[in-house]
Amino acid sequence: MEWTREQRYKKYSDWDAATLLQLQAQAATSKYQMHYHMHPLSGLMNDPNGFSYYNGEYHLFCQSYPFGPVHGLKSWTHYASDDLVHWHYLGQAINPDMDKDNAGAYSGSAMAHDGKLLLMYTGNHRDADWTRIPYQIIAEMDQDNHITKKDEATILPPDHVTEHFRDPQLFEHDDKFYVILGAQDKKTKTGQIDVYESTDLIHWHENGYLSLPNEMGYMIECPNLVFINGQPVLIFCPQGLDKSITNYDNVYPNMYLIGKDIDLSSAKFSPAQLAPINLDDGFDVYATQAFNAPDGTAYAISWVGLPDSTYPPTDQEGWANCYSQVKQLEIKDGQLYQHPVPAMRNLRYNEVSITNKKIISSDAKRQYELKLKIAAGQSSSLHLSDLILNFNTSSDAHLTVDRSHGPAINPDYGATRTISLGDNQDLDLDIFIDGSLCEIFINNGRHVMTLRFFSKSNTTISFDQNINYTGKLWDMHSIL
Amino acid sequence: MEWTREQRYKKYSDWDAATLLQLQAQAATSKYQMHYHMHPLSGLMNDPNGFSYYNGEYHLFCQSYPFGPVHGLKSWTHYASDDLVHWHYLGQAINPDMDKDNAGAYSGSAMAHDGKLLLMYTGNHRDADWTRIPYQIIAEMDQDNHITKKDEATILPPDHVTEHFRDPQLFEHDDKFYVILGAQDKKTKTGQIDVYESTDLIHWHENGYLSLPNEMGYMIECPNLVFINGQPVLIFCPQGLDKSITNYDNVYPNMYLIGKDIDLSSAKFSPAQLAPINLDDGFDVYATQAFNAPDGTAYAISWVGLPDSTYPPTDQEGWANCYSQVKQLEIKDGQLYQHPVPAMRNLRYNEVSITNKKIISSDAKRQYELKLKIAAGQSSSLHLSDLILNFNTSSDAHLTVDRSHGPAINPDYGATRTISLGDNQDLDLDIFIDGSLCEIFINNGRHVMTLRFFSKSNTTISFDQNINYTGKLWDMHSIL
Repeated sequence: MEWTREQRYKKYSDWDAATLLQLQAQAATSKYQMHYHMHPLSGLMNDPNGFSYYNGEYHLFCQSYPFGPVHGLKSWTHYASDDLVHWHYLGQAINPDMDKDNAGAYSGSAMAHDGKLLLMYTGNHRDADWTRIPYQIIAEMDQDNHITKKDEATILPPDHVTEHFRDPQLFEHDDKFYVILGAQDKKTKTGQIDVYESTDLIHWHENGYLSLPNEMGYMIECPNLVFINGQPVLIFCPQGLDKSITNYDNVYPNMYLIGKDIDLSSAKFSPAQLAPINLDDGFDVYATQAFNAPDGTAYAISWVGLPDSTYPPTDQEGWANCYSQVKQLEIKDGQLYQHPVPAMRNLRYNEVSITNKKIISSDAKRQYELKLKIAAGQSSSLHLSDLILNFNTSSDAHLTVDRSHGPAINPDYGATRTISLGDNQDLDLDIFIDGSLCEIFINNGRHVMTLRFFSKSNTTISFDQNINYTGKLWDMHSIL
Repeated sequence: MEWTREQRYKKYSDWDAATLLQLQAQAATSKYQMHYHMHPLSGLMNDPNGFSYYNGEYHLFCQSYPFGPVHGLKSWTHYASDDLVHWHYLGQAINPDMDKDNAGAYSGSAMAHDGKLLLMYTGNHRDADWTRIPYQIIAEMDQDNHITKKDEATILPPDHVTEHFRDPQLFEHDDKFYVILGAQDKKTKTGQIDVYESTDLIHWHENGYLSLPNEMGYMIECPNLVFINGQPVLIFCPQGLDKSITNYDNVYPNMYLIGKDIDLSSAKFSPAQLAPINLDDGFDVYATQAFNAPDGTAYAISWVGLPDSTYPPTDQEGWANCYSQVKQLEIKDGQLYQHPVPAMRNLRYNEVSITNKKIISSDAKRQYELKLKIAAGQSSSLHLSDLILNFNTSSDAHLTVDRSHGPAINPDYGATRTISLGDNQDLDLDIFIDGSLCEIFINNGRHVMTLRFFSKSNTTISFDQNINYTGKLWDMHSIL
């Protein structure tokens, strides 16, 4: 189906409810659907927004287009959780219902302040001639989840940026308020992170572009700053990054940069790395949003989906994309580690221990967790239905994820992803399968590989030869 | 808001999607909402339908009106579960989209047969002059959850019933197929259960009204037959039952009758009781649906809501009613016992043990389970916020649930419910609180009292004096 601009930007009130119910049923009954990861109730979800802690709960909002698997008129949908695993659907939160966001309530962040949750987002305004003006808008949510938008934009695009100026992260640091924004410089057409500062959340001063160790392509989307044991970490999506800086395989990468220090007043980031590093080594992570919880822990959640990409098996069913699980961030040996949150363990049931068996399961469900410790000095393949993990734990140690045996997904960007491993070392894999989603935590979170795959059935888990390993397999409870 | 017939029977496609999304948000953000019981995504739910086991999962369908807290144009919404606790929303299943169900796809049942799940329901047809014809229709669901309705009604109303002829339960027994239906006899205007028999599911023979030990008022709704250790048990809703037969407090009761034997070919039920007994001793259970799982276990789930009743606090929020948890049925000492299913224990977390404390919790969440063993020989009150349980475990032993301290709910039918207990015996209570729902399992399922209540806050759990008891309190995970 070809979607015209008119269709994509049709008001929600011009769609009929029977169509929406039908789309919800299609999404819900898909065999590719996730049951313990967030997914759209209908239509498309993209960037996670407003990830925060407020009023005794974690909150998360989703960029959402309810009427099809395309990027149409966007709104924010609201979820809440008390354990970062079970999320309650709380319905539409920010609707594109005013002139300043007439073409979509685009991505943003949230910060608890003064008894309210402040939601700061990009109002994607389009003029009659379709010229874009990005307004940075604050909306306030109260304890009853009622949301009130401010009439006036908090930040207007400065003269020196193009129309690409969005994804505000609002946060408090050293008793001041800051907003960092993804931006494209008008003159150089380079990707930048623009820094704003305020003492009262009303008057904002532009501190300028954040100093970065490399030229970051033609645009940076979704910048996030978090602190891990006092160290600043930037998580961001540089579009058009030169692959000689850091290689990547996806259309656009999601990268991180650990800093030694950051001085937001002077927009100075002192990197602890020479160049950014891929946050995820799989196929499908983008627009990760991270925040520091009140106890200081840094959590991240990723859009599993990419701009300019399609997933035909589920697109055909009228819905698109999902989110990763929430990942707890740690810095170890100068690298970012990502871990499942503790409550993920509560989803496990029907534990089976396995040692050296060639066939791990011949009738696995479509939802499972598989944790393996593969001994050093081996080379083989693990088949998760038609998804194949080739590994070598002797010399030239590596792990390759191969999704070429299922339907082609964004084939211009390859069907395999490979990471290097330490030679002659045991390989730890913590694999989460959920419908058409696969997340692999490698060597206790040193790497994560996240991807969609579309097996007709998910029934067989097996090695292609006898292998020395120990492992556990669990069925997984649903969260929605 | 006054709902006209025209509004209530407006086609789903004539509603707009923005309104539906708004109703979903209102239902989802309610502080009265349930988080571990099934509830409407929007609008109203009533009778549970099609409770069954098929294709490796339990299935349940809900009588559903998505557009408000009223009985409008009904459809079936589909949920599935592998543990009878976690239910996945699978969207709209049977829509009122043909002439024979033009005024609603009303209640019915499901039976796995020949690789399909047969859904048998009452097509509520209305002529232009609003005259009702109830058609009993079979729809087939395949393993991909696709549903196809049969063109022709399977059973037409016989001449001897009024327009009140509905709620077919389809089941297999002794190698034959049967349907039992709630009916009103045209001549006597009495409530009946009409029995049909078939060998091929196409040709049906009416065996006549089931013999019952009492006159069952003017109509029987929602008849169910299950077998518990070989004993037939009828669960049904006799409307207008003479209170001298069995006393009841609600506008309409939900009753059960244990049989010694049943001969469906001759429509003969041999009761083991003189009169029916209230299935639930609370305020708000109706239209319970029960079925025998493949292993023979009998399960039941109830509508928590009643015909001709309103619940103003949530009606004002645009949504109405919920379901009980699934109850496992047992016969002990000639009585029906109802138990939580084992998987309900998996929802518990943050266990706290308590002994003889006057204040059990001063900051309980809105979702919890409280299990108490109150020693014999005492009399006091347990306060669950403004819901009060008065008990006496000495002589004249009884338990009274008093919801008079919150907003009035259907006040014509009283604000207290009382059951008698054995004198001088310990009292076991297993109390499940979920938003505005309370379920109390008494003395290991000998009684169940189910009700809605609307406390402004659910924070305090306390006795009004010092009491000898032991207990445990858990927070409860969400299922949706």
